[in-house]
Amino acid sequence: MRLRGRKGIREDIERQSELVVLNARDHKGKWAELFGNNNPIYAELGMGKGKFISEMSRKYPDINFLGVDMYDELIRKASEKARAAHELADEEETIIPNLRLVLFNIEQIEEAFADGELERIFLNFSDPWPKKKHARRRLTHPGFVNKYKDILNENGEIHLKTDSQLLFEFSLNSFSDMGLRLRNISLNLHAEGIHPDHVMTEYETKFAGQGMNIHRCEVVIGPKALEQHIQQLVKSNS
Amino acid sequence: MRLRGRKGIREDIERQSELVVLNARDHKGKWAELFGNNNPIYAELGMGKGKFISEMSRKYPDINFLGVDMYDELIRKASEKARAAHELADEEETIIPNLRLVLFNIEQIEEAFADGELERIFLNFSDPWPKKKHARRRLTHPGFVNKYKDILNENGEIHLKTDSQLLFEFSLNSFSDMGLRLRNISLNLHAEGIHPDHVMTEYETKFAGQGMNIHRCEVVIGPKALEQHIQQLVKSNS
Ligand SMILES: C[S@@+](CC[C@H](N)C(=O)[O-])C[C@H]1O[C@@H](n2cnc3c(N)ncnc32)[C@H](O)[C@@H]1O
Ligand SMILES: C[S@@+](CC[C@H](N)C(=O)[O-])C[C@H]1O[C@@H](n2cnc3c(N)ncnc32)[C@H](O)[C@@H]1O
Repeated sequence: MRLRGRKGIREDIERQSELVVLNARDHKGKWAELFGNNNPIYAELGMGKGKFISEMSRKYPDINFLGVDMYDELIRKASEKARAAHELADEEETIIPNLRLVLFNIEQIEEAFADGELERIFLNFSDPWPKKKHARRRLTHPGFVNKYKDILNENGEIHLKTDSQLLFEFSLNSFSDMGLRLRNISLNLHAEGIHPDHVMTEYETKFAGQGMNIHRCEVVIGPKALEQHIQQLVKSNS
Repeated sequence: MRLRGRKGIREDIERQSELVVLNARDHKGKWAELFGNNNPIYAELGMGKGKFISEMSRKYPDINFLGVDMYDELIRKASEKARAAHELADEEETIIPNLRLVLFNIEQIEEAFADGELERIFLNFSDPWPKKKHARRRLTHPGFVNKYKDILNENGEIHLKTDSQLLFEFSLNSFSDMGLRLRNISLNLHAEGIHPDHVMTEYETKFAGQGMNIHRCEVVIGPKALEQHIQQLVKSNS
């Protein structure tokens, strides 16, 4: 393993211009162009080292994925993970058609995405910010969720996973208070073992391994997603 | 303490005709008459030994309370608790103006209450029925909740407390799937200690004492209750 200073990290991610996006604002309203197709775009906000987004992009080639984080060191780590997951042999090879790693601060998310540009947002093990005075920084605070509502499309959903009981409770209340529809709420996701199709995140692997409860829920945002959800419910009850 | 057989129990509760209701069906649509006023009626479905409903009725004299259970032995125990809570000195004295203990099976709840007759339903530590094939017996199954929706009035709410993670998860999904609005969701009610105004149930005292998490939520059913809830949210966010 080479040791790299901050400058080395920056050079490294700048070199991977097909995989890493450093100027997210320039792509606002134009992410479909970047991918060269109109497939739905799913973004993980706060992807960390990128295990989840790498595996998802490998598993679902017809979905475009964005892994967003604000630390260049994590973008670099995620780029390595992504290239490994997609089995890119050559060190210089950085083209993964349906994945981009985006260096960006989620606090300005509305500056990177136009209305309706995303179809799904994943919030995996977001920082819980346990102190009440920091509640506004939680990624499920109504201040953030209002922005997500704008940038999600008519099929839009938010999928949340967390070990934090505090963050989960806060998030359920935040979504409910905003009048949003919750679905598939789970207080102990892996109670009956881990489904082979389930893609784990780094934090999930760690916490589930320690026997901690993983909480999960989905929020149905887009009107079409809501319609479909209700049709499924009616069907399963008849 | 006197020992009593089943016959003794029955005689005991029959004697207390001002406190115990054995013919709930006859009062359908006429519970206000029974109380002699138009105060809101709150019912605990599955009250057990009656600690909660006794203390609530003592604490809130302007609300009428009904404690419902299907076992006469529990009705008898609850009657003793109620008389003690209201400090009725005389053994023969059984008049508590705002409380009735109702021997009834909740499965037929629509036969005991007319549409809009209740203002609040408490479900405290209801049996979790952990096996999937028994899910229909859970008191928060949509089959039950649909009945509650009918018998609750325009200010109607359901307040749920339970130690059971399984029942709580099931209930959240059941309410959400029915499109009902959740409020004040708590995954660990006593995390910051027990508020002096909080009325504990028997089971709550036991489980909280063992350090178990108590889950709680409120469901806003009536249109007026929903309107008020939304106004409060708007106010607290402005
Ligand atoms: C606890 S980690 C979880 C990582 C990954 N999702 C997982 O489940 O393993 C949270 C991540 O969110 C990122 N993050 C937190 N706030 C952010 C923000 N405002 N903008 C971008 N990334 C943020 C952090 O840098 C960190 O990598
Ligand atoms: C676990 S206990 C809880 C008692 C009390 N609410 C508490 O929190 O301490 C559940 C109670 O619900 C009553 N119950 C269960 N199913 C019922 C039904 N279908 N009709 C009436 N009561 C029922 C049981 O008899 C029992 O007393």
